[in-house]
Amino acid sequence: MNASKLYRTALRFAPAQCSVKRWAPRCGQTSRLFSTSAYRSIAVAEMSERDMKSLKVKKDRLMADIHHSCQWGEGERWGDHPTETGMSRLSLSDTDKQARDWFAATTESLGCKVTTDEMGNQFAVRPGLSDGPPTCAGSHLDTQPSGGRYDGILGVTAGIEMLRALNDAWVETTYPVGVINWTNEEGARFPKSMVSSGVWAGAIPLQTAHDTKSVIPSSDTATMRSELERIGYLGPTPCSWQSNPIAAHFELHIEQGPILEAERRRVGVVAGVQAYKWFTLTVAGRDAHTGATSFAHRADALLTASKLILASHRIAARHSALASTGILNLKPGSTNTVPGWVQFSLDVRAPRDETVSAVEEECKAAFAAIAAGSDVEGVNAGCAPSERQCSVEWRTDFVSPATHFHEDCVSCVSETGKDLFGDADVVEGNLESWGKMMTSGAGHDSVYANMRVPASMIFVPCREGVSHNPREFSTPEACEDGAQMLLGSVLRFDRLRAQRGY
Amino acid sequence: MNASKLYRTALRFAPAQCSVKRWAPRCGQTSRLFSTSAYRSIAVAEMSERDMKSLKVKKDRLMADIHHSCQWGEGERWGDHPTETGMSRLSLSDTDKQARDWFAATTESLGCKVTTDEMGNQFAVRPGLSDGPPTCAGSHLDTQPSGGRYDGILGVTAGIEMLRALNDAWVETTYPVGVINWTNEEGARFPKSMVSSGVWAGAIPLQTAHDTKSVIPSSDTATMRSELERIGYLGPTPCSWQSNPIAAHFELHIEQGPILEAERRRVGVVAGVQAYKWFTLTVAGRDAHTGATSFAHRADALLTASKLILASHRIAARHSALASTGILNLKPGSTNTVPGWVQFSLDVRAPRDETVSAVEEECKAAFAAIAAGSDVEGVNAGCAPSERQCSVEWRTDFVSPATHFHEDCVSCVSETGKDLFGDADVVEGNLESWGKMMTSGAGHDSVYANMRVPASMIFVPCREGVSHNPREFSTPEACEDGAQMLLGSVLRFDRLRAQRGY
Repeated sequence: MNASKLYRTALRFAPAQCSVKRWAPRCGQTSRLFSTSAYRSIAVAEMSERDMKSLKVKKDRLMADIHHSCQWGEGERWGDHPTETGMSRLSLSDTDKQARDWFAATTESLGCKVTTDEMGNQFAVRPGLSDGPPTCAGSHLDTQPSGGRYDGILGVTAGIEMLRALNDAWVETTYPVGVINWTNEEGARFPKSMVSSGVWAGAIPLQTAHDTKSVIPSSDTATMRSELERIGYLGPTPCSWQSNPIAAHFELHIEQGPILEAERRRVGVVAGVQAYKWFTLTVAGRDAHTGATSFAHRADALLTASKLILASHRIAARHSALASTGILNLKPGSTNTVPGWVQFSLDVRAPRDETVSAVEEECKAAFAAIAAGSDVEGVNAGCAPSERQCSVEWRTDFVSPATHFHEDCVSCVSETGKDLFGDADVVEGNLESWGKMMTSGAGHDSVYANMRVPASMIFVPCREGVSHNPREFSTPEACEDGAQMLLGSVLRFDRLRAQRGY
Repeated sequence: MNASKLYRTALRFAPAQCSVKRWAPRCGQTSRLFSTSAYRSIAVAEMSERDMKSLKVKKDRLMADIHHSCQWGEGERWGDHPTETGMSRLSLSDTDKQARDWFAATTESLGCKVTTDEMGNQFAVRPGLSDGPPTCAGSHLDTQPSGGRYDGILGVTAGIEMLRALNDAWVETTYPVGVINWTNEEGARFPKSMVSSGVWAGAIPLQTAHDTKSVIPSSDTATMRSELERIGYLGPTPCSWQSNPIAAHFELHIEQGPILEAERRRVGVVAGVQAYKWFTLTVAGRDAHTGATSFAHRADALLTASKLILASHRIAARHSALASTGILNLKPGSTNTVPGWVQFSLDVRAPRDETVSAVEEECKAAFAAIAAGSDVEGVNAGCAPSERQCSVEWRTDFVSPATHFHEDCVSCVSETGKDLFGDADVVEGNLESWGKMMTSGAGHDSVYANMRVPASMIFVPCREGVSHNPREFSTPEACEDGAQMLLGSVLRFDRLRAQRGY
């Protein structure tokens, strides 16, 4: 024990002069400030690499938090074990409110002050030795309608486990640290993904976000604002990086892809997020009787949409990009009526913005030609010609340029991995043996956070790369690895801040 | 006036001995039996060709009936005129009940006895000089969710106009004549088209029909039986051709195709109905994140379904058959989730049963191969290969073999046309100048009726062949032609019965 540590131990018994006076935990068990225990606190700024390495998260406690929180919004069962179900916890639903209540109560019991902003984002902040914006671990508690137990949930619960581990070891960070639960990251119920970190970053107007209408169930007429009000999560704090700043954003997430598992890597150090664009396509043809209308007289919106979906796949494949359709609606919807109207989503992704643009432009040209009957992309070959055509309209719903995470944060993550798992350097994009430097295929709240503050992400393997599916699964060991990486990365960033004095 | 006619005129004033004693019309205006008018009635059996030809339907009255009945279930507007809207009158809905009430009240006021059977089929029967099963004009008053004003409705209202014209001219048929409103012909709300004529013909068990569940709206849990009870149309009469027989079934219908208009024919004499089969296909893949799942790891149920729809079109086109998909549902339905489950309808039609079977067999082989990644029908060319496959399951929902209408009925229709419009004979399938001998592409209640009694159909042109669409339209002149043909055909059949004594 060095002198500094002794000094802070003494401080415990003199709270009136304590620099951490804002910190007044509510729960006796984890209360430290007024404890009569002589257990020594330790400041991050003075922790050795060995100290840092000896600070451990608890796997069983983390898994207990994950599964406890998954009682709200349980989805489809896929196995016999009680925890072998998916999740269906749509943003701002009744079950999302229950998960939020639990998040607030739990983090408050761990000594945090919890702030809720105008988008319902929850910031649980644990004081540091000095004031300042918190270094945060953030993710989300909402899920897809047919989602799993790890996407988002792992990131938030690992943040809670970080708080528990810091409390267990009486660790004092130089600056505050926090855990964030971002609202409606999935964009499943309110069709703007990461909308609330987007508002926080100033990229999406508050009004636009508040007015966003629910699409699940389709009969729902609720807006984000009306649902925030209904469940009591329309907070008083401005949703703004300026009014409610953070110092950095670290996000632990399952990979949602198959690479780490296939290459037997324990973690992924995420250097950025691929670019993507979301579109809504409307194909207008003409309703007609399936029996009485020859192919030559049809303007079949669904047959045309099928050709467009296939063409988008072929074009994306040529560019090593991704094109996907997840939503398709048609009218009128009767076995013996050729649909005269189809609307479908198109999600185009690639690591580079230019690739996304190229796929978009090729699809635009191809779709118009295909609807007009030309044999573009080979889809009209072998089809009966028709004197009637469909029209195709494009609407751009969402643009997310390629993101490059902040080098300080990426360093904190890779240094932590090196410390925990080995000391191989980054070689050709690979963190040899233990991890992999990678680009995220999916968007995350870290993308918006990175617009305003340093951010980066940590990936852990998930079984067969399956995500947005009830069977989504990561082993307890992978979850533990991730939480350990998250804790180490946040503490390293705190130490970096202490060294730099901000 | 011959002796027989005089005799019946005398009978009018001696109702107690009248052979038409069952006939007791309710409405004074059209009441004939106890009328003090000396207007002569005329027996069909004794009508000359000239008498037959002079018996006219009234176009304006027919159009007034059509549009009056379309006040219940008005659909999408497509023009400025009050009648320029489509229809959305789903079977056994509140608006269908209103149309049924009107049908019953109107036909009763015209002297009919109206019977409702266990499937809600309404039989309005006008007595003849002798007892016996009625020669019927039948069609349906339900529509597609996004249908028009002529499909079904023209056939029923033309039947009513037939009654009006018979009453106007005091025509006595030898045997009763009737008008039938069949329940749920469309199969749009309860997904079995022509289900109620099917039960009547003994082709579909009553229980199966009663248990059929609504599919529109998708949240509806009603069955045909529960809806029949709710709207008060679960009648006491057995739904059976044996218990509640008819002598013949004539059906006037819009063509729902473009041929008559294109060839400038006034009517179509329908010799039969093409064969068709309805299937439900289920494609099972795996939900996955659109951004994090490479093409190589996807089992994309919607991309696969798109390929299958395109392949079914190519296969049908090669066989000069039709293949159509009118319904497609997917799960989970989120822009950034690759759908793991798609279900779609497949409707295959051709004039010959063997052709439908051949298309079915080729589709079955092709679909399995396409889902497995083989480049069958050219749809997998240019696609990214995947290590994951989708499965495809087939369910046969409905089989309607090719129908050949009864020669007596077909003759009555073609003779009527010859009488009304010209005297050219059938030459190579064409009724020269005025009409065309044709096969119906769509199924109709006449198909089931024809299983048990002589039946046939009359087609009139509809604009651009458009049907199952709000813009469905036939000119008042075409509707008049059709009603005139229907009247003439029913009377000719009645005369044929009189000649043959049954």
